[in-house]
Amino acid sequence: FLDQLRLESLALSNLVANQQLTLSTVNWFAVGNGAIINPYRTSPTYHGQGSRLWRWARYMMALQRAPNPPVTALEHWNDAGDCWCTAMAPSPGGDGGAQLAVDLQRPVYPKRVTVEHLPKAASIEIRSAPREMELWVRVSGASQDSTPHASTCGAGPRGWTCLGRFSYNVHASNHVQTFNLDVDLESMGVGPATNYMVRVDSNWGLPHTCLYRLRLHGDAA
Amino acid sequence: FLDQLRLESLALSNLVANQQLTLSTVNWFAVGNGAIINPYRTSPTYHGQGSRLWRWARYMMALQRAPNPPVTALEHWNDAGDCWCTAMAPSPGGDGGAQLAVDLQRPVYPKRVTVEHLPKAASIEIRSAPREMELWVRVSGASQDSTPHASTCGAGPRGWTCLGRFSYNVHASNHVQTFNLDVDLESMGVGPATNYMVRVDSNWGLPHTCLYRLRLHGDAA
Amino acid sequence: FLDQLRLESLALSNLVANQQLTLSTVNWFAVGNGAIINPYRTSPTYHGQGSRLWRWARYMMALQRAPNPPVTALEHWNDAGDCWCTAMAPSPGGDGGAQLAVDLQRPVYPKRVTVEHLPKAASIEIRSAPREMELWVRVSGASQDSTPHASTCGAGPRGWTCLGRFSYNVHASNHVQTFNLDVDLESMGVGPATNYMVRVDSNWGLPHTCLYRLRLHGDAA
Ligand SMILES: [K+]
Ligand SMILES: [K+]
Ligand SMILES: [K+]
Repeated sequence: FLDQLRLESLALSNLVANQQLTLSTVNWFAVGNGAIINPYRTSPTYHGQGSRLWRWARYMMALQRAPNPPVTALEHWNDAGDCWCTAMAPSPGGDGGAQLAVDLQRPVYPKRVTVEHLPKAASIEIRSAPREMELWVRVSGASQDSTPHASTCGAGPRGWTCLGRFSYNVHASNHVQTFNLDVDLESMGVGPATNYMVRVDSNWGLPHTCLYRLRLHGDAA
Repeated sequence: FLDQLRLESLALSNLVANQQLTLSTVNWFAVGNGAIINPYRTSPTYHGQGSRLWRWARYMMALQRAPNPPVTALEHWNDAGDCWCTAMAPSPGGDGGAQLAVDLQRPVYPKRVTVEHLPKAASIEIRSAPREMELWVRVSGASQDSTPHASTCGAGPRGWTCLGRFSYNVHASNHVQTFNLDVDLESMGVGPATNYMVRVDSNWGLPHTCLYRLRLHGDAA
Repeated sequence: FLDQLRLESLALSNLVANQQLTLSTVNWFAVGNGAIINPYRTSPTYHGQGSRLWRWARYMMALQRAPNPPVTALEHWNDAGDCWCTAMAPSPGGDGGAQLAVDLQRPVYPKRVTVEHLPKAASIEIRSAPREMELWVRVSGASQDSTPHASTCGAGPRGWTCLGRFSYNVHASNHVQTFNLDVDLESMGVGPATNYMVRVDSNWGLPHTCLYRLRLHGDAA
């Protein structure tokens, strides 16, 4: 009985905390706030198993849906499958891996990132959940060399700097997880950023990775 | 005041329970988990009142929406009308009545069914809610004769067996109602099932029946 | 710590209250209950800043979405931007301002109106939220002259009467706010109404106004 009570109290406190997060913080990655996907720095979408012909045949017979586009990772979700999956394997410390790039409508000083995934207990395949991730921003011109970037990050593209590395835990009690960034632009004396990139360095075991929702919190410039 | 408190405490406990159900159990009827509608065993969709010409005229004038397709009964809902309605009357004990057939992507041992409907107090027409329902599965080959099926069920198609009968109560405090099945395939020594059919034996008073959402819980094979 | 506790308890009580409102009252403005937008009395949609050519160019480059249509103000929302914005400035006491007209499928005795907006703390621009609003109904024939209408309302179109004036407060703890009407048709001895109009008399500071969701509660005729 006490276990049941503890479980329910945990569920309730997560419910309230997640609700509060949504109702009391601006999400700069929201499409309604002007965020759009940068397709040039976003890795390709996963199209499911089987050959291209086989998938086409299934799709034609309405046995398979078209995969969700990258913008799905910025949108509200309700159910299993309301996510974006990328075909690229996570790539620790370098280019060419799973990543999602987002351009904002206006510059922002980022402070925290929220990562959401379908809870493990409701999931038929939790191994596609992200594990270690990095947040990168593009910094303009001269400042790019002098900016300290989070030392734990891998190598990034020229002109970009890493603001933090964080780890999504599929075993945690709350499937909505918010991470403070190691460094923030304001304290670095660098201007606010408009171009963002979230990299997946590792996941929970599959070649492809699925993202249910990413949110960015911070202060308007 | 105590009545108010009791009401709120009931509302809260339902809220937490429903949230927990969603976050802690796999729903095999979720489209994102690969479930698709089997159109051959699904009864026709209800197109509303009035003659075909009248409905067409209203539709052309944007005074009427196209009816939701059967897959709506597998999807998340928020509002009145986010449901699938079938034109067939409930049919106790036989073929030809209201039913929805769902094929899974992989075989499953079913354990429980969840039925959801818009709560009575928020509904302008609760009489279209389902009442007595049956869950059927297709069992392959030889096993079909020897399988004990829930004796309270009506007659079903050849090669299918009934796993349970349950009753959705529009007067219950929680509009999300989960039912344990009378028998489960694993205990029967039969293989897991991929093809499912939910039958509506009776509803709350109308000729047509609406389903807001059906969920299937159980163990992967 | 006590402040934190108070905040969480407030969040929880709002969560339960909002859930209860949704699950225990009929919303006559729901599209699924047959409500449709009356385009002749609804003010034009806001298309965003910049010239027509500039917006078209951005739209073509997929940098801008098409604006949401008026019916969005009757629908469920999850995120920033899931609203309808009208280009017309609020117009205290007269025609030609921001307004949304809704026709029901059947006549209703209106009792309360619910107004929802994205909470201030989650909003990058709260000044587009509505402030003072009026609910108008069309009354037929002879009764129109004798009907007492809420004296605080501005002038309305011929054949329409004002049932109440209310004020949405962006600083309130709950972003879902329900208002009792000053007068109701039943007590006035007038027949139930099918045609409704919600007017925005003022907002929180911008030339355009956005409506996340309007709901109408009352008794069926
Ligand atoms: K999503
Ligand atoms: K549904
Ligand atoms: K909306």
